[in-house]
Amino acid sequence: MPTYKAPLDHYRFLINEVFDVAQLARLPGMEDFGPDVISSVLEEAARLAEHEIQPLNLPGDAEGCRYENGTVTTPKGFKQAYDRLCGGGWTGLTAETRYGGQGLPHVAGTAFEEMMSSANMAFGMFPGLSQGAYRAILNHGTDDQKDLYLPMLASGVWSGTMCLTESQCGTDLGLIRTKAIPAEDGSFRITGSKIFISAGEHDLTENIIHLVLAKLPDAPSGVKGISLFVVPKFMPVPNGNAWKAGTRNGVRCGSIEHKMGIKASPTCVINFDEATGWLVGEPHKGMRAMFTMMNAARLGVAMQGLGAAEVAYQNALTYANDRLQGRALKGPAAPAKPADPIIVHPDVRRTLLTIKAFTEGARALSVWVGMQLDIMHANPDPHAKQEAEDLLALMTPVLKAYFTDAGFESANMAMQVYGGHGYIHEWGMEQFVRDARITQIYEGANGIQALDLVGRKLPQNTGRLLRRFFHPVQQFCESNAADPTLAEFVVPVAKALGKLQYATVTVAQKGMANPDEAGAASSDYLRLFALVAMGYMWARMAKGATEKRPQAGERAPFSPARLRTARFFMARVLPEAEMRFRQVMAGGKSMMDMPADEFAA
Amino acid sequence: MPTYKAPLDHYRFLINEVFDVAQLARLPGMEDFGPDVISSVLEEAARLAEHEIQPLNLPGDAEGCRYENGTVTTPKGFKQAYDRLCGGGWTGLTAETRYGGQGLPHVAGTAFEEMMSSANMAFGMFPGLSQGAYRAILNHGTDDQKDLYLPMLASGVWSGTMCLTESQCGTDLGLIRTKAIPAEDGSFRITGSKIFISAGEHDLTENIIHLVLAKLPDAPSGVKGISLFVVPKFMPVPNGNAWKAGTRNGVRCGSIEHKMGIKASPTCVINFDEATGWLVGEPHKGMRAMFTMMNAARLGVAMQGLGAAEVAYQNALTYANDRLQGRALKGPAAPAKPADPIIVHPDVRRTLLTIKAFTEGARALSVWVGMQLDIMHANPDPHAKQEAEDLLALMTPVLKAYFTDAGFESANMAMQVYGGHGYIHEWGMEQFVRDARITQIYEGANGIQALDLVGRKLPQNTGRLLRRFFHPVQQFCESNAADPTLAEFVVPVAKALGKLQYATVTVAQKGMANPDEAGAASSDYLRLFALVAMGYMWARMAKGATEKRPQAGERAPFSPARLRTARFFMARVLPEAEMRFRQVMAGGKSMMDMPADEFAA
Repeated sequence: MPTYKAPLDHYRFLINEVFDVAQLARLPGMEDFGPDVISSVLEEAARLAEHEIQPLNLPGDAEGCRYENGTVTTPKGFKQAYDRLCGGGWTGLTAETRYGGQGLPHVAGTAFEEMMSSANMAFGMFPGLSQGAYRAILNHGTDDQKDLYLPMLASGVWSGTMCLTESQCGTDLGLIRTKAIPAEDGSFRITGSKIFISAGEHDLTENIIHLVLAKLPDAPSGVKGISLFVVPKFMPVPNGNAWKAGTRNGVRCGSIEHKMGIKASPTCVINFDEATGWLVGEPHKGMRAMFTMMNAARLGVAMQGLGAAEVAYQNALTYANDRLQGRALKGPAAPAKPADPIIVHPDVRRTLLTIKAFTEGARALSVWVGMQLDIMHANPDPHAKQEAEDLLALMTPVLKAYFTDAGFESANMAMQVYGGHGYIHEWGMEQFVRDARITQIYEGANGIQALDLVGRKLPQNTGRLLRRFFHPVQQFCESNAADPTLAEFVVPVAKALGKLQYATVTVAQKGMANPDEAGAASSDYLRLFALVAMGYMWARMAKGATEKRPQAGERAPFSPARLRTARFFMARVLPEAEMRFRQVMAGGKSMMDMPADEFAA
Repeated sequence: MPTYKAPLDHYRFLINEVFDVAQLARLPGMEDFGPDVISSVLEEAARLAEHEIQPLNLPGDAEGCRYENGTVTTPKGFKQAYDRLCGGGWTGLTAETRYGGQGLPHVAGTAFEEMMSSANMAFGMFPGLSQGAYRAILNHGTDDQKDLYLPMLASGVWSGTMCLTESQCGTDLGLIRTKAIPAEDGSFRITGSKIFISAGEHDLTENIIHLVLAKLPDAPSGVKGISLFVVPKFMPVPNGNAWKAGTRNGVRCGSIEHKMGIKASPTCVINFDEATGWLVGEPHKGMRAMFTMMNAARLGVAMQGLGAAEVAYQNALTYANDRLQGRALKGPAAPAKPADPIIVHPDVRRTLLTIKAFTEGARALSVWVGMQLDIMHANPDPHAKQEAEDLLALMTPVLKAYFTDAGFESANMAMQVYGGHGYIHEWGMEQFVRDARITQIYEGANGIQALDLVGRKLPQNTGRLLRRFFHPVQQFCESNAADPTLAEFVVPVAKALGKLQYATVTVAQKGMANPDEAGAASSDYLRLFALVAMGYMWARMAKGATEKRPQAGERAPFSPARLRTARFFMARVLPEAEMRFRQVMAGGKSMMDMPADEFAA
């Protein structure tokens, strides 16, 4: 059975040596959360993930969820683990203190999400989905809605869902058919059928709060006619200072899907039959509110991709050290043993380092981007706020698509290290692959992320968002170019940045004249973008691994493993940027020229 | 439920317009098998695959195999389908006529393997494994062994297995522990436990013939001490002109594995307890015989990778034409419909064309390499024979690794086209992904294929094997360089070939001084090699799609879809060669420098 140890050392390194996480504690309301406090919280989170949540992962996959007559039973142990989660305040880790949350910075919340995903992706989805519901009500709900739902969601006593997809529409939500009819009391009667609702029904909480996209009778057609409603499974009834579940609403789970993975997370058909709901935000402005949920969810999914890669890496590394097979090419490394551990082989090392270069680079990126969430929420300076919001908006599709694509690739590489054993359920590696696969699809398939990047984020405010990324990278390269210790990292990143900037101009120009050109470039462009961002992170980590430590009074490398991984990244991973650049520059003609009926010829 | 149509048109194109398949009918013993006959056989094969085998695929995955007290029950319908296969002579398609086979060229057998793999990979493994056993006995068995086993295997009345792996060894067969003790009657008593034995036990045939690697009492240690034995499940008893199953031998299935995919193919633990077996070939020379099985099996696995990609592509294409979602970026393409089919989107087209460029290029490569098998077997000219054998030996690891890596990537891309539906079992796409995943692992994990290429095939006879590939590619490029219609295909291939040749010299030189350098380059080098081979195929197909048709008297493109796919390959797929070149040239230092214990740091 696989094991897991949360990457606390790396988080400490990022918090203390690479990023100025201490600045967050200078923001109003966050004075209590210095780097040391964050580290302590992560240590607690690690204990929970490693000892309570991870052991349920493999058996949860084997058992799966059970559907019977409208109810869903989660695997053995899930309820107890969920209660433990609530008891420790983890469901409200980043929730506002006025709603009973812990008020911790999002940078801690993001790290917690990684750990949950590594330990048990399917389990982690229950609290994860509630986050989206919490944010949507927080940002768009009335005060009454906030007072009612937010404490119940933060405490984890109730859970939340996002009900968007219908069988005829996923990406194109303009096609939804679920209807909302106004009732006399100001509420609405919601009728329609939603599919692919994660945690839509289960036995972990006493109530489930659905956030549902539906159309009002007078709705304009398309995405401009969608409204958001809150629809509880049970009607909330006052209960002292809190609330409890009252009579059943017209909400019923029709079935659950048989899926490739995340089998312990029920993916439900949810039928609304004149269910009582309340409008959240303005009529017909549901897409805006939906994006609040989606953006938080997209970062969460990015962390799932990273989490899968991390746990897969750890186990592949153990196997590579334990498995004796063949001899090192240069001659026996462990002559006393019947064979050498397979980690002696260059190709096994290449595989492991490719994953390590991804997980550590991605983790750095997640901390950098996670900090923007905190600055955006807590910084009173509107300019700083805007800057953080811009960078976040720009990086969200990049992280969602790249972390999940590379996360899936990494899980597969780790599985490959196991040879035939990787394909067998009991070893656990194939589950990581199956689970990770959904992350490339849900919360906006990765092709949609790429379109969001090139079609929406690139042109926004004449490229203002882009500059939030280009400037710091360029600045870093310029101010460190003269440092001989860092040249081996800075030079390739600066080159790749140049290619990205050139590609950006090309895509923007060609895309203006012909949007299909932007679409044709989108996925390769996103990947190129991500590689530059990863290179920037590795260069910053290389710097953090050499020059800090003022007490030593010198620039000795104190984290040689990190420097070596940085070198590997530059030598073996970053060359992909050249391929992506060429693919982007090749343009869209070769794919748009093909008549639809000739794809089958 | 997914559908499948065998790619007969493409096979006809390859046979008639690209390769001189007609030359095979000029070889002794193959006079009956001109291109027309091969086409007719493939049409029959297509009917079988599409109508009898494919419908069992999805239900077979859901039902899986059942183990009970030493017996294995295959899914519903498998036995009838297998009997149909035998009845049509398909189990002996390429088997020698003197053993009751059809004697067809291997180029037809390879195509048949693709169709079986597309239709039902798990089912296709039953006849597939027998092939390996047949070839091993044919090449290394005594006349008595051939007379006994080959007709029973060719008819499919009995099936065969390859018993190599044990729990402590897969790649490194020098570590096997299974023992063979000589008995007085010239037979041996085999004792030991084998794992991962595909079709090791099942209910499709009346007997199962295991080819087992074991060690004689006086065996030298390591791979030079392994011998091959034939160990039937039931002792063969004469039955008129044929044989039947007699008393039970000491062979028992201990369990079957719970796997990620190919669930309808039982992966067995097979325990031999003083089982009676007979030596095949010379004592201690089992590895040579094993490679006979393995090389045939490796090409078969390559076809599985291609087959998975092909069927996944076909279904993704149907979905992309049917699924209405969003609008074309340039404005509605189907304004009368609620939305446009998603095939209007450049990124969906990019995805589909990436798969199509792979499947058609790989199919061409499989025909080219498959023909070498026939030339090697049937050409009386020793030089032609040697040339064919060299090319086959060189290309086998390339096809095995590249077809299965790109096949898996393709299945994933096809699944991605389905969005959320791709993750759900009933749509069938996730099964293609799960099934395809094993092909990267078994019959020598792809990392081993890469080592075989750089460590064994490159240096062999001072590069003689390599020249069998470099010469025709170079010759093709030179003799078509002046043709303006072909320049757009020839130029990029010639450039990529130049990079490959440069990389080859570098790897050979560095690898001589330090074998870890060859190992560090191996996987990227193999992929670079494969891309050049694919480019060569696409250039030849582009030529075949323009210049043939003497009756027309001109060089009009008669297959525009093929030309367009060729253009897409050059623009969007071949740039990977540049990345692989850079990765190869980056050397092994960055991965060998890392101390084993720092991988966890």
